[in-house]
Amino acid sequence: MQCNCDHLLDSSKDHYNNCSAVWDERKIGYPCPKNHDGTLRLRNPHLRHLERDFIYHLGLDTSADMSAMFGDVKFVCMGGTKHRMREFALHVRQALGLPATDTGKLENLTKHAQRYAMYKVGPVISVSHGIGIPSMSILLQEMFKLLHYARAQDPVFFRIGTSGGLGVPPGSVIVSSWGLNGTLEKSYNIPVLGKVRKLPSFFDERLCREVQSVATNEGYTTYIGGTMAADDFYRGQARLDGPFCDHTEADKMSFLRTLSELGVKNIEMEATAFSAYTREAGVRAADVCVTLLDRLQGDQVTSSKATMVEWENRPIALVGSFIANCCKRRGLVNGRQ
Amino acid sequence: MQCNCDHLLDSSKDHYNNCSAVWDERKIGYPCPKNHDGTLRLRNPHLRHLERDFIYHLGLDTSADMSAMFGDVKFVCMGGTKHRMREFALHVRQALGLPATDTGKLENLTKHAQRYAMYKVGPVISVSHGIGIPSMSILLQEMFKLLHYARAQDPVFFRIGTSGGLGVPPGSVIVSSWGLNGTLEKSYNIPVLGKVRKLPSFFDERLCREVQSVATNEGYTTYIGGTMAADDFYRGQARLDGPFCDHTEADKMSFLRTLSELGVKNIEMEATAFSAYTREAGVRAADVCVTLLDRLQGDQVTSSKATMVEWENRPIALVGSFIANCCKRRGLVNGRQ
Repeated sequence: MQCNCDHLLDSSKDHYNNCSAVWDERKIGYPCPKNHDGTLRLRNPHLRHLERDFIYHLGLDTSADMSAMFGDVKFVCMGGTKHRMREFALHVRQALGLPATDTGKLENLTKHAQRYAMYKVGPVISVSHGIGIPSMSILLQEMFKLLHYARAQDPVFFRIGTSGGLGVPPGSVIVSSWGLNGTLEKSYNIPVLGKVRKLPSFFDERLCREVQSVATNEGYTTYIGGTMAADDFYRGQARLDGPFCDHTEADKMSFLRTLSELGVKNIEMEATAFSAYTREAGVRAADVCVTLLDRLQGDQVTSSKATMVEWENRPIALVGSFIANCCKRRGLVNGRQ
Repeated sequence: MQCNCDHLLDSSKDHYNNCSAVWDERKIGYPCPKNHDGTLRLRNPHLRHLERDFIYHLGLDTSADMSAMFGDVKFVCMGGTKHRMREFALHVRQALGLPATDTGKLENLTKHAQRYAMYKVGPVISVSHGIGIPSMSILLQEMFKLLHYARAQDPVFFRIGTSGGLGVPPGSVIVSSWGLNGTLEKSYNIPVLGKVRKLPSFFDERLCREVQSVATNEGYTTYIGGTMAADDFYRGQARLDGPFCDHTEADKMSFLRTLSELGVKNIEMEATAFSAYTREAGVRAADVCVTLLDRLQGDQVTSSKATMVEWENRPIALVGSFIANCCKRRGLVNGRQ
């Protein structure tokens, strides 16, 4: 059963009546966190007492007019590198038919903080999150705060990335249905005050299907499947080519086959926390990654630069199409940037 | 008892006789991993079978002449942002009296991979690692492989960073004696093939003291102390100002006081894996961070840009002085860059 909290495609206010039960069932333990107007209701009573909130890693604070800057945001797309997210922003600008600035360049709105790179084109934010859960989760949490203060309504989150596939041809695209952690649980485990909390790591099933439905699949296939989020790139993903390794090829294959039998289609380093935190904030989210190799065939990423660029463009094109379709259907693009 | 594996300051070959015992005692379970000539002996038999090793996130592979490029490296200094590591490289270039290139600019040697930014000045590599353990540990492991292939001798690793202090004035510098994880263990816990391994997270005590001894402490104090490495910036560090928080001010203070009683002087997001992996590779390492606030007084980082820049320069100056002293004493600088 999925949370139906979906203002973007369905503006009915009634669904909150059912939402509480759904969120309880997922063991988050409280009702759907969004307000009735679709703005984010952050589950932190302490924030009310802050006169000014310094959102440290974005280099922004609430003395700025957050609503004027970000109130119109409907989509946040995150990905590992600054380069990829700049490409995504340029792609979306073109797909939405938005005008370029005089110089044609995009402004990095968070450059003073020197951590992440954030671009805004119309109702879309494109922002880099670095590698791994701690880096991604700082950005994600600060985006929740930013959009809460901006009173943005019903933002939908995407992650576009690269990954290692499991039993699918390199270049395939995976839309994650859930995240699996390193000890094979469908949860993001985070220590709070010295004790581990296990936050369920499921994605919005309907959004998965909606994203998959716009895939062109020209020369490749877009799957929906499980995603393992590892905290390490080498032995944490059963690789044999790190600096430290005391397991055998047979150990590795046995582990990868176990993952595959559990329904894992790809391995990356963010899916658990991305799904858990977006669920906790009550926002819909999808994780869309291309596979750069089939881990059942090897460990090293050896494709040519040109092939990699082509593959990395697949999640960009897919999420770009989804966003462009939504914007056109709802008349969201007003030329503002 | 500390491992005495210290070719840099003591070129005696005899100490390996004792080293095995020391490494066993630390429960790593095998003798000192360095070869007798000080090059890194990687504990992975599979690497021998690789015809060519693609070091993916650095965008380098072993078809290049690694020895010519990196064989003279004696120091690797890592830190979060590209900006900071560029500043560090410029600082070291000046401190070592090395000539600038014609343009005065530094070349980012890993720019094609679009992940980390790496600069080389004489025997020193300065490289950004992003935020958090997964991002840092990919870089660290790829640096071990790179220096192994380059046959670099006795490289010493540093991390320079920012942190939240515990009971010390903002602007203090902490040299970490050990890392503490989110469940209050002195270990880095990494799942391998579905099972958690606990790697001890202690730093080289002698190197800590050597680094502390070159501190000028003009207007501030440099401490040696424990460092908590959190996987999250907000509730994972007991903060009250994240998007999600269900603990009270009293819960937070109780937790921070527990940390303080355990000997924790600051909180950042990398110390456990940085100490555990450098120990496992048999290289000496130090983690040197400035504190941007006292967490016993608050959660938000609110100092002015100018103050922050001044504080962030303290680890740069301290590690820069240490490296410059070592280089001068051993005549390591030959003008090559």
